[in-house]
Amino acid sequence: MRAAVFFIFRPENGRFLLMKSDINDLTKRIIAFRDARDWKQFHNPKDVALSLVLEAGEVMEHFQWKNKEEMAKYVIENKVAIGEELADVLYWVLLMSHDLNINVLDALEKKIKINEGKYPVEKAKGKHTKYTKL
Amino acid sequence: MRAAVFFIFRPENGRFLLMKSDINDLTKRIIAFRDARDWKQFHNPKDVALSLVLEAGEVMEHFQWKNKEEMAKYVIENKVAIGEELADVLYWVLLMSHDLNINVLDALEKKIKINEGKYPVEKAKGKHTKYTKL
Amino acid sequence: MRAAVFFIFRPENGRFLLMKSDINDLTKRIIAFRDARDWKQFHNPKDVALSLVLEAGEVMEHFQWKNKEEMAKYVIENKVAIGEELADVLYWVLLMSHDLNINVLDALEKKIKINEGKYPVEKAKGKHTKYTKL
Amino acid sequence: MRAAVFFIFRPENGRFLLMKSDINDLTKRIIAFRDARDWKQFHNPKDVALSLVLEAGEVMEHFQWKNKEEMAKYVIENKVAIGEELADVLYWVLLMSHDLNINVLDALEKKIKINEGKYPVEKAKGKHTKYTKL
Repeated sequence: MRAAVFFIFRPENGRFLLMKSDINDLTKRIIAFRDARDWKQFHNPKDVALSLVLEAGEVMEHFQWKNKEEMAKYVIENKVAIGEELADVLYWVLLMSHDLNINVLDALEKKIKINEGKYPVEKAKGKHTKYTKL
Repeated sequence: MRAAVFFIFRPENGRFLLMKSDINDLTKRIIAFRDARDWKQFHNPKDVALSLVLEAGEVMEHFQWKNKEEMAKYVIENKVAIGEELADVLYWVLLMSHDLNINVLDALEKKIKINEGKYPVEKAKGKHTKYTKL
Repeated sequence: MRAAVFFIFRPENGRFLLMKSDINDLTKRIIAFRDARDWKQFHNPKDVALSLVLEAGEVMEHFQWKNKEEMAKYVIENKVAIGEELADVLYWVLLMSHDLNINVLDALEKKIKINEGKYPVEKAKGKHTKYTKL
Repeated sequence: MRAAVFFIFRPENGRFLLMKSDINDLTKRIIAFRDARDWKQFHNPKDVALSLVLEAGEVMEHFQWKNKEEMAKYVIENKVAIGEELADVLYWVLLMSHDLNINVLDALEKKIKINEGKYPVEKAKGKHTKYTKL
């Protein structure tokens, strides 16, 4: 159950790029990890989504009560710990996408296009206003 | 700002695989989308994590009050909508990972190894017990 | 800083009722607890709301992965622990209401009336449909 | 199903205080509202906790992306809307406490005492450090 080694050919510069791991491999490993433990029985969408929310909460907890200066210092000193929490969120995103047969990379690509329509540069520049109020 | 076209060479079967998009490209597009709108100024870790939690909540909301049968039907009929919410979660995972200089794929790979240690198959099989209580 | 002892006169039955504590007293104690520690400086609405979400998550975590039968057993055996988490949520509701000068009991009374309008018995009975789709 | 009118006798100053509504009455109204719609069947602890988290998220969403100055202005102009979201959180706290037979006011009183022990004034004053690291 190892991640394959990839050589990615980038047509824009004619080079090959070595990659250690990618989303599809990670998804396969997550599912193999799960199935080896016979946990599919617990992974209904409600409990998986609940786990996703709790892990997102653990990312957020790192920043509770901290002001900008404290956060700037904190993120440097706690990069590994924050990375682990972000990995936990990604874990559930990939597992749920797999189980519901959703291509989340495609979905994200589409979502970026949707957001480009919702937030045209000339209207949204420098504002944090929701698109419904732009 | 288009996603590159990839040809992935898989050494295990000697074949090339065409890929439309990958995590690095999506991250680049997200950051370009953000920077074109001059939104970096709002993207402190606290507000980004808060957004991550809210988007995870929107995934979860799809399953509120539904029992297993209702969910099974629902996920088929609402695959696109659920995919959009998962994409929103992934969006913030990638943006935060970028901003904090975290390689989230590496972090996930390490996390899977950690979890393999925390949840040995012989102890964890068929149980949803937390590792601290196994 | 003790909760006062109340005698509540209920006009409907002409009786007095002894109460140990109420919302106003609890709010006063929470604020006194906070101010004795000089924590007002940290209690901006964003961080208080973030804490509210995290504590609500801790309530939810109790039920992760459990089916109905497991939950029924669990809530009896873990009443004190669940009560503590609900108390933590109430803590932040009362603190935020105090700081923003909101009468949350009045707000709840109004909200119940609003919901009575959104969910008329004849339409909503036995259904978990959101009012926008009734 | 109206909230009773109370006269609270405060022994410390010998006065009676008129109160429109209290926690017990609000709980009764919430349960009557629920039972009239035959919604008890949906109110398992997991879905109720999930709703609690989502409503807490709606409180938090009000403060997304806003800095201190923007929040100060916002909370004054949006007091009613924020109050409604806090009321929604309180709604689920009271409903769950009722269903699990938890006296949440007692639980909060106990929790304040616990926190007084965890965060002694001389150690915690002016710091937002978690008690485990004090």
